[in-house]
Amino acid sequence: MARINENFNKLTAGYLFPEIGRRVSAYADANPDADLIRLGIGDVTLPLAPVVVAAMRDAVDEMGTDKGFRGYGPENGYDFLVDAILEHDFRSRGIELAASEIFVSDGSKQDSGNIQEIFGTDCTLLVTDPSYPVYVDTNVMAGRTGPVDDRGYYRGITYLPATEENGFMPGPPSEAVDLAYLCSPNNPTGAVATRENLEAWVSWAKDCDAVILFDAAYDAFIQDETLPRSIFEIAGAKDCAIEMRSFSKRAGFTGVRCAYMVIPETVMGTTESGERVSFNQLWGRRHATKFNSVPYVIQRAAAATYTPEGREQTAEQVRHYMKNAELLRKGLADAKFTVFGGEHAPYIWMRTPDGQSSWDCFDSMLSRAKVVGTPGSGFGPSGEGYFRISAFNSRENVEEAIRRITAM
Amino acid sequence: MARINENFNKLTAGYLFPEIGRRVSAYADANPDADLIRLGIGDVTLPLAPVVVAAMRDAVDEMGTDKGFRGYGPENGYDFLVDAILEHDFRSRGIELAASEIFVSDGSKQDSGNIQEIFGTDCTLLVTDPSYPVYVDTNVMAGRTGPVDDRGYYRGITYLPATEENGFMPGPPSEAVDLAYLCSPNNPTGAVATRENLEAWVSWAKDCDAVILFDAAYDAFIQDETLPRSIFEIAGAKDCAIEMRSFSKRAGFTGVRCAYMVIPETVMGTTESGERVSFNQLWGRRHATKFNSVPYVIQRAAAATYTPEGREQTAEQVRHYMKNAELLRKGLADAKFTVFGGEHAPYIWMRTPDGQSSWDCFDSMLSRAKVVGTPGSGFGPSGEGYFRISAFNSRENVEEAIRRITAM
Repeated sequence: MARINENFNKLTAGYLFPEIGRRVSAYADANPDADLIRLGIGDVTLPLAPVVVAAMRDAVDEMGTDKGFRGYGPENGYDFLVDAILEHDFRSRGIELAASEIFVSDGSKQDSGNIQEIFGTDCTLLVTDPSYPVYVDTNVMAGRTGPVDDRGYYRGITYLPATEENGFMPGPPSEAVDLAYLCSPNNPTGAVATRENLEAWVSWAKDCDAVILFDAAYDAFIQDETLPRSIFEIAGAKDCAIEMRSFSKRAGFTGVRCAYMVIPETVMGTTESGERVSFNQLWGRRHATKFNSVPYVIQRAAAATYTPEGREQTAEQVRHYMKNAELLRKGLADAKFTVFGGEHAPYIWMRTPDGQSSWDCFDSMLSRAKVVGTPGSGFGPSGEGYFRISAFNSRENVEEAIRRITAM
Repeated sequence: MARINENFNKLTAGYLFPEIGRRVSAYADANPDADLIRLGIGDVTLPLAPVVVAAMRDAVDEMGTDKGFRGYGPENGYDFLVDAILEHDFRSRGIELAASEIFVSDGSKQDSGNIQEIFGTDCTLLVTDPSYPVYVDTNVMAGRTGPVDDRGYYRGITYLPATEENGFMPGPPSEAVDLAYLCSPNNPTGAVATRENLEAWVSWAKDCDAVILFDAAYDAFIQDETLPRSIFEIAGAKDCAIEMRSFSKRAGFTGVRCAYMVIPETVMGTTESGERVSFNQLWGRRHATKFNSVPYVIQRAAAATYTPEGREQTAEQVRHYMKNAELLRKGLADAKFTVFGGEHAPYIWMRTPDGQSSWDCFDSMLSRAKVVGTPGSGFGPSGEGYFRISAFNSRENVEEAIRRITAM
């Protein structure tokens, strides 16, 4: 008799974004004339950069020839992409990494969901709250937590509240934890970690032999060159941090699918008997067994974003979204909403008006302004009373959304 | 202190194919002039079909336009692909499935590795032996087995020997098991299941409330139209089977990455308290949380294989590989090797000469014939004494390989 993985039953409702999709579909079905503006799920809207399109066309053509055809790729990514990553994302910022420390994948959602597999099921966990739901949900599925309580907290996870008081970027806790998920620029709050904040985290992790899973999927949106884009800009991070990067937001790849993970050889875990094992080696075994490389055409697309034209064209996309973020931030503030984020991230984190709940705010935004956002409480209990608005849309739609919300 | 997942330490050596890659690289480095013919890893060699290339080019162009750009896709696949799958792979063979029962993915390796996540860790397992290493390795990693013994058997797995006596297609065991991995056409033995064999398995699964994970990645290589291509051709299978299909071999997509899984709504598992839960629903939650759709361009490529031109062009590729298989089978048999498979599958399963071990055969094939194959023992203990030769290569290389092996 096949038994199910009962940890799935601990999960609260559906995964957040499909759940929002269902509510929006239900509304749209009941109100077919409603002209909805979607600022909910963080999905890009600009077409792929010309240099990316050209690289993909060339790669597609190659795949149609005897000489250019490529079958299974190297599991961890083609050299042409790994070398570009090492050069432009790291060496240019003073960070030396080896090719064997880069693992190209089909998305940071997958990476941040799968990475927990190489850790013991008895590892203790920490998330900043609110956080990207994949961190918590995948650990629940893997049995690393107890049940959820009435307030939405899973037993066995340390939730560190990200609040207005700490600028939505809490420092490390006083106690030891094994595994900590950090995200900067932050999804959902739009806050960004300072060097001092990350230094405190690295110091804490080294003290308690913890591993930091650092999600830098939004690094390209940082506007201040002095802010860290990678946790490896912090001394000592190579001993305690794994970093996730994505092309989804920085180059409009949400429908193209490419990301990568950095696992320095020096990040070690421990066996019951006290032996030290490199997580790089464990992930290599996992990646070789359960993954099969990113499509050649897609890796060529990703590599094109590092050419001079690619960097300029994708930077122009980022500027477009960040101008949207600035308009949203100012427009909503002028209308007396209290807003955060949006300066180094494509997300506005809005305090709901009049103490409204996050889902009530979602419903009133949807029915009165025809604007789809994301309820803050969907990202964790401390997100209650907030509402996330994404800057990923056309200028016209963003301006119209501001007009509608302001007129509510 | 971050603890590692110690189940990884139970794994024997590296994952098979990277291990072969390392040995071949070492040989090639030491013998730079050796003209190796690679019939090891089952990787296709023909370029993508013209209709696939054209569809990808069109999709790439779309992605570069405001109107045609697509961000996140529907998690389970675009309708245009799911509808084509339902029509051509199932309805045309009398099988009715719902769109909600199809989950498009980036590979059957991933699907066959990830599917175990929705089962309880106390589920008992069965594999036919030898088998595709991902089935066993991913369950070891998930802690569903004990350690491996001297002969290569993991405690907690039922190994059903696939032997010359049972035509490498064993029937079901007498005892109950929760989860059984079956593969037809079989990797590595090249054997194919008859309708009667699958009927016996379905009957057994229904009797003991087991789930069959049916890997049909090589369905396109079946030459006899009366043989089942899908387990859902067997009455009752929708109550007990999950099927995996791939575009990798049937359309040369090993470097393109597209596959799908069929999970009928009626395949149920049980909770500790006896509640029945649909595995379709569990996988839907898993897929939404840890996966993010296959690239739009790739789904268009997959859909193109179902057009009349696509079916003809990919059938022509299959004919090429099956002619190779026929030549290998006949050529080796004429040279007094004992060979199996290769009639409905792109693999020749050769008995090693003179009782040689599989790895000794691998080494002598490599050093004396400069031909790379796969040691049968890499697929499980019952593969010892056999050697897998893949038919995926050019006609010229296959003919040369036959000459060299024959002359050994």
